Amino acid sequence: MSALGFAWKIDPDDLLHVLYFVAIVAEAMTAALAAGRRQMDWVGVALLGAITALGGGSVRDVLLGRYPLSWVEHPSYLLITGGAALATIVIARHMHHLRRLFLFLDAVGLVVFTIIGCNVAIGLGMPVVIVLAAGMITGCAGGVLRDILCTEVPLLFRAELYATVSIVTGGLYLGGRWLGLPHDLVMLGAMCLGLALRLLALRFGWSMPKFVYTESLH
Amino acid sequence: MSALGFAWKIDPDDLLHVLYFVAIVAEAMTAALAAGRRQMDWVGVALLGAITALGGGSVRDVLLGRYPLSWVEHPSYLLITGGAALATIVIARHMHHLRRLFLFLDAVGLVVFTIIGCNVAIGLGMPVVIVLAAGMITGCAGGVLRDILCTEVPLLFRAELYATVSIVTGGLYLGGRWLGLPHDLVMLGAMCLGLALRLLALRFGWSMPKFVYTESLH
Amino acid sequence: MSALGFAWKIDPDDLLHVLYFVAIVAEAMTAALAAGRRQMDWVGVALLGAITALGGGSVRDVLLGRYPLSWVEHPSYLLITGGAALATIVIARHMHHLRRLFLFLDAVGLVVFTIIGCNVAIGLGMPVVIVLAAGMITGCAGGVLRDILCTEVPLLFRAELYATVSIVTGGLYLGGRWLGLPHDLVMLGAMCLGLALRLLALRFGWSMPKFVYTESLH
Repeated sequence: MSALGFAWKIDPDDLLHVLYFVAIVAEAMTAALAAGRRQMDWVGVALLGAITALGGGSVRDVLLGRYPLSWVEHPSYLLITGGAALATIVIARHMHHLRRLFLFLDAVGLVVFTIIGCNVAIGLGMPVVIVLAAGMITGCAGGVLRDILCTEVPLLFRAELYATVSIVTGGLYLGGRWLGLPHDLVMLGAMCLGLALRLLALRFGWSMPKFVYTESLH
Repeated sequence: MSALGFAWKIDPDDLLHVLYFVAIVAEAMTAALAAGRRQMDWVGVALLGAITALGGGSVRDVLLGRYPLSWVEHPSYLLITGGAALATIVIARHMHHLRRLFLFLDAVGLVVFTIIGCNVAIGLGMPVVIVLAAGMITGCAGGVLRDILCTEVPLLFRAELYATVSIVTGGLYLGGRWLGLPHDLVMLGAMCLGLALRLLALRFGWSMPKFVYTESLH
Repeated sequence: MSALGFAWKIDPDDLLHVLYFVAIVAEAMTAALAAGRRQMDWVGVALLGAITALGGGSVRDVLLGRYPLSWVEHPSYLLITGGAALATIVIARHMHHLRRLFLFLDAVGLVVFTIIGCNVAIGLGMPVVIVLAAGMITGCAGGVLRDILCTEVPLLFRAELYATVSIVTGGLYLGGRWLGLPHDLVMLGAMCLGLALRLLALRFGWSMPKFVYTESLH
């Protein structure tokens, strides 16, 4: 029985599963908008959506040598994310009304992916640094692939507290587990605090300091 | 005995093997031209040729966890593709006469790679969606790597029926197998129809509709 | 006892290990400067440093199916390279005095990575072509990842004898082993000659001829 089961009737693992679908759909839809800004065709939109949504977990699993990849085991993920990207073409005309919702869902995706990535590495018996790295790769690598395929310097490297939110979320999750707090509480607490940090960063334009270097090495 | 053996004395599997060499040489040579447009040096030309020609199969195998990769098992593939790219430097001055031949061989490469990729996934017992995805990755990922290394938004995502041809070819191949038609007939038929679609798309400038989105999400 | 042990009291394997740390720190620091030229934030600087320094070995191991990756086995490598990149922010104001030192350490990194990559492939029983390719991938792929993430056409493909130095170093190393010369002598000799070639290329602006092609295939 879940530690929070008395409060909600939803099992937190089920919740995480539901949130995973919310996350991959949200990532696919934001990737579709990036594709539209590059005037990609419909096939490109579907591909960029699937690659962005499933790329973070795929990079993590390839680096950790963990097979089969999630979308190979569950091919429906390819159809869901490609379909969500295509659906975005239809609803894009209404998207400016949905802008806040999308940024919110994208932030949910970041913390959900992070927790899932940490759990995968914990399940493989990885040390703390690799658990945090696995969380960050899962949360962020999809967006890096999206930006590379759009030939933009990855947003991750230059703006907003994106990777930072992932590290904080993973750190809170590991810290809470280490303290022996109930797992469900720790998982939900880390996700909520990470989400709050991301939303505050968006709202108030928080960002890391930049490193500006103008001389050429070569 | 091959189902078409009465008509030609060539075994279709041998034909596929020959076409594979045609395909990797053609991909390496078109990549060399892309390298020349970026004024890369000779080493860059050879590397870009090998990466483009062998990259699709490599990405597929890394994602499916299938080792060793083809060029690790057959190192001569590295020499053939790198050499074909270097040879392109010499013959490039005559290349405008060969333009149509190159586009034709590139199209042959696309359908051959697609069938090979589908066969690899079928051999691993993969479900239909992954078989089609493996065909498309094998056919298209090399060109995506080429475009990323040239810092161009991948052609695949923005123009022509390239990925579409791969999906159609794979779909015809799987459909024919599912109907229980003779394997050689299905394989050659799917390749011919896919090739025809690609050549018609090139001839008449067919393309998928584009998704144009101008508002910024961030 | 090492073949050169009478001359120095340092075991060449220990030396290679020390040089590996010099190499990853140097690669992380030069990557940090590239990040600064793109005005990345501190997180981006640390990430780009770690990816550049550890990326070459990671690409090699993923392509060869060799797990766990070095930084998964030794998570401290992530902290060392990320930390070195961050330290570069502080010392960057003095970096123009250190320019020559950095180019020298970067060249040391290239030959050290090359020898390590060759040794990994030899240990896996790979044929000569793959041993040379593994050396070149280890030496050069990190810089390619850095350039892709900065959306620049990889330096490797367009300038200087970078890949060439790697192939020469690997070739000398394999040739010396094949001749049955003492391993330590061969290893150090190949590294010194490769380093000399790189430094001479930098000093005199040596480069491979370029392939310039201006016509469009499409």
